[in-house]
Amino acid sequence: MIQRTSVAFGAVLLLAAALAVAAETAPSVRDGVRSYRQAHEREILAELTGLLALPNVATRVADVERNADHLTRMLERRGFQVRRLSAGEGTPPSLYGELTVPGAKRTLMFYAHYDGQPVDQKGWLSDPFKPVLRTGPLGAPGKGNDPKDVDLTSVTGPLDPEWRIYARSASDDKSPIVAILTALDALKAGGRKPSVNVKLFLEGEEEQGSAHLPEILRRNAPLLAADAWLLCDGPVQPTRKMQVFFGARGVAGLELTTYGPLRPLHSGHYGNWAPNPAVALAHLIASLRDEEGHILIPGFYDDVRPLTAAEKSAVAAMPAVEAKLEDDLALGRTEGNGARLEDRLMDPALNIRGLRAAEVGEGAANAIPTEAQVSIDFRLVPDQTPQKVKEKVEAFLRAKGWTLVAEAPDRETLRAHPKVARLAWSLDYAASRTDMSLPVSRAVVAAVERATGEPAVQVPMLGGSVPMALFTDRLKAPMIGVPMVNHDNNQHGINENLRLQNLWDGIEIYAELMADLGSLLEK
Amino acid sequence: MIQRTSVAFGAVLLLAAALAVAAETAPSVRDGVRSYRQAHEREILAELTGLLALPNVATRVADVERNADHLTRMLERRGFQVRRLSAGEGTPPSLYGELTVPGAKRTLMFYAHYDGQPVDQKGWLSDPFKPVLRTGPLGAPGKGNDPKDVDLTSVTGPLDPEWRIYARSASDDKSPIVAILTALDALKAGGRKPSVNVKLFLEGEEEQGSAHLPEILRRNAPLLAADAWLLCDGPVQPTRKMQVFFGARGVAGLELTTYGPLRPLHSGHYGNWAPNPAVALAHLIASLRDEEGHILIPGFYDDVRPLTAAEKSAVAAMPAVEAKLEDDLALGRTEGNGARLEDRLMDPALNIRGLRAAEVGEGAANAIPTEAQVSIDFRLVPDQTPQKVKEKVEAFLRAKGWTLVAEAPDRETLRAHPKVARLAWSLDYAASRTDMSLPVSRAVVAAVERATGEPAVQVPMLGGSVPMALFTDRLKAPMIGVPMVNHDNNQHGINENLRLQNLWDGIEIYAELMADLGSLLEK
Repeated sequence: MIQRTSVAFGAVLLLAAALAVAAETAPSVRDGVRSYRQAHEREILAELTGLLALPNVATRVADVERNADHLTRMLERRGFQVRRLSAGEGTPPSLYGELTVPGAKRTLMFYAHYDGQPVDQKGWLSDPFKPVLRTGPLGAPGKGNDPKDVDLTSVTGPLDPEWRIYARSASDDKSPIVAILTALDALKAGGRKPSVNVKLFLEGEEEQGSAHLPEILRRNAPLLAADAWLLCDGPVQPTRKMQVFFGARGVAGLELTTYGPLRPLHSGHYGNWAPNPAVALAHLIASLRDEEGHILIPGFYDDVRPLTAAEKSAVAAMPAVEAKLEDDLALGRTEGNGARLEDRLMDPALNIRGLRAAEVGEGAANAIPTEAQVSIDFRLVPDQTPQKVKEKVEAFLRAKGWTLVAEAPDRETLRAHPKVARLAWSLDYAASRTDMSLPVSRAVVAAVERATGEPAVQVPMLGGSVPMALFTDRLKAPMIGVPMVNHDNNQHGINENLRLQNLWDGIEIYAELMADLGSLLEK
Repeated sequence: MIQRTSVAFGAVLLLAAALAVAAETAPSVRDGVRSYRQAHEREILAELTGLLALPNVATRVADVERNADHLTRMLERRGFQVRRLSAGEGTPPSLYGELTVPGAKRTLMFYAHYDGQPVDQKGWLSDPFKPVLRTGPLGAPGKGNDPKDVDLTSVTGPLDPEWRIYARSASDDKSPIVAILTALDALKAGGRKPSVNVKLFLEGEEEQGSAHLPEILRRNAPLLAADAWLLCDGPVQPTRKMQVFFGARGVAGLELTTYGPLRPLHSGHYGNWAPNPAVALAHLIASLRDEEGHILIPGFYDDVRPLTAAEKSAVAAMPAVEAKLEDDLALGRTEGNGARLEDRLMDPALNIRGLRAAEVGEGAANAIPTEAQVSIDFRLVPDQTPQKVKEKVEAFLRAKGWTLVAEAPDRETLRAHPKVARLAWSLDYAASRTDMSLPVSRAVVAAVERATGEPAVQVPMLGGSVPMALFTDRLKAPMIGVPMVNHDNNQHGINENLRLQNLWDGIEIYAELMADLGSLLEK
């Protein structure tokens, strides 16, 4: 299959060279790709919804395998040579795809992931794995102004680019995969060929902390060689401007449980004497960070690598998004004493994902709960590591009088220690920042700007965590993020969605990168 | 029915007088009642389990009505004249029962409630409304040493008094009703009659804060006249000693919700900037009370009426239960810097019943939750009132920068205020303490001591809340608590249960009170 495609591309080689010379007058890559997309919107959407219909929570390996099978067929249809990369039986596989372009001297690797966040939260408008096209973004809660379902069979003409696909992974991170493949389709249909060899790495357990990724990379390092890795994950700017990012924060997860009496106790007969684990948890949380986001653990910021002057300038040049976001999200305040969002994302952070103790509201009983739990995610920056963060948190809690255990404590442990907390860590990965001034860094920015026709927002480090450090530390290749999905996509939450215009934009950007990067690097 | 019963009691009047004279040699009330119980254990248990099988969460009025119908039949079988007391259509009814004793000059009112706490918590060993007899108390979690089910059809001889009935309201508060009625059965079978007119008041929404009780009392004050009210609710001492209590703490409930962004936000892309409502809630809770139980709201303790010297002595004389409790409950510490449990229960308290924000554990997403909720119960002492507590809490939170709302806030409200909290109060009732030195107070203690053959523990005020203030403030009658159920009954929690020996003890105590109180007060 890859042979035949290469031949097809070979046939247009001379034409492509001619076009490059006549770049001022010939149709641009962007125009060609756009025409193709406009003629094929429904097919592109059908391919995406077919992929979204496959449940992909990575704790269910069989589901992930079904996604991998489906993706393999999608890649092979485009002439990719596909391999399934595994860290061992019963682990979620990653997919590797390779499309060699005759004459190309450079190799570009596209990274995306096809697994998704859990879907246990209440409030989905529809089944997370039955994609639904709707007329716009979510309405305000309780206002009855939620978007309407679109029935494509009763629609004629082009699709409204403000419509959105609602499904788990619509934005995070299946749509970039469809955009990359459609970009290839569009180049081919327009008689162009990529200026680089194209490789794909599609990860299968990113949302579970990429536990097996290091082993997969270790086993396949030569196969995965590339001049640069493009990371196709995360959202564009809240202003809807495209952005290029050169790093991402790291992440470490913590489930922390405090303990009260062995049995629920009547709060009237025992309250004020038997210790309340929810009160203890509240004080513990308040001791970890303040209401402005500052982490109160001594030495927590010691390993933070300062931004370079170039990075500081890039952050300062990023567009102001705060006013619109505050309005969209109905925020009456922000954390950080009014600091800019982009500045805040260059710092480490401690977020509470969830709290749980007994019941609230109608189901609440007048009782002292037996335990209370908080779910925390730490966001890390260079040169913090998950292991060092763990050590600092634990030393801090021990100094505060907590006895720390890794498993649910038995009666004897609880009896013997005044304050027992169970800590279950997921030490996911460190942060990464690629040098913004490398030639490949500049070339990627130039290609993106050619696709969009305007300056790209350049972000030294993304707030969200993607396992860039696992790649850059191991493969020693630069890694640069080129995201495409809308910022207001509810990724990780309920009613995750993708705005169609972002899918259309992604196709054009990825096409331009494939078409241009080789020649840009040879200049 | 009540006529015939009165005649029957009349017939034994002279005999009873003779017995009183020959008290030293005749069988005691206790011995007679015990013999009756020993001969009728299975029937008594069958009557209790029949009552427990009726769901009784007071938010479902139809369920409460079915309980009232069933109880009416139980009372009428004993010759009571029964009336259903309501505060209006669609409200849970209370039941009033009256049994006039010829010649009795005093009237004793027994209070109990037949509604129960919600049963939404996970972890019940069996359906809360399918009573199960088991061989003992609950085992330790995960130890596999839970008690075994008892099949009464394969048991011969007397029942093991350590066996327990597991069901919602087994202890709180249906078993006292069965004990009172069985006490009457036992007296009658032994040819004795009560020395007092017996009245029953069985409330139908105590666990929902007795919202309609004031109106029921207002409408029926003359009917409810009595020399004393006996409150048959709450547990005996953790040492298993019987106790008499002269008051109870009041209670006010609070559901408090804090707000983050309007939609769940990716914690990597927006965390550290968009405010986290769970962090805000933790700081709010930590500002309300410390880890020792001390409430940090200025002026919160201003209205606390000090204990009298007699009350202080009574508290000091209460048996030490702490060591055993700490061991039973696997406590590594207690709140109050090591103060005694009984001392702690004389103070007001703030208990957290539950916490909730998004999800924890496997279901947790890397997102900033949209809201966080805490469920709180305040325990009040004389002369605090729920209204004054509400005012103090709200003034404190406002001073801390919170904008308080009573309903879920709209987008505009959230946008306009830095910190918005929704407060939903249930201003239940105040505390009450009856004078321990009244003649009727002394007589109740004497009767209980006669039934048990040992000194009764005298408690100035119970830690748990029962609506004593609603009665004492309105009816101006002394109210004294005479509880019977085991302390380790898990009331309000999962797997609520009643130890059989406590039911047997309750029957003897209530019988002695009926048999003796009239004559004790005439001495």
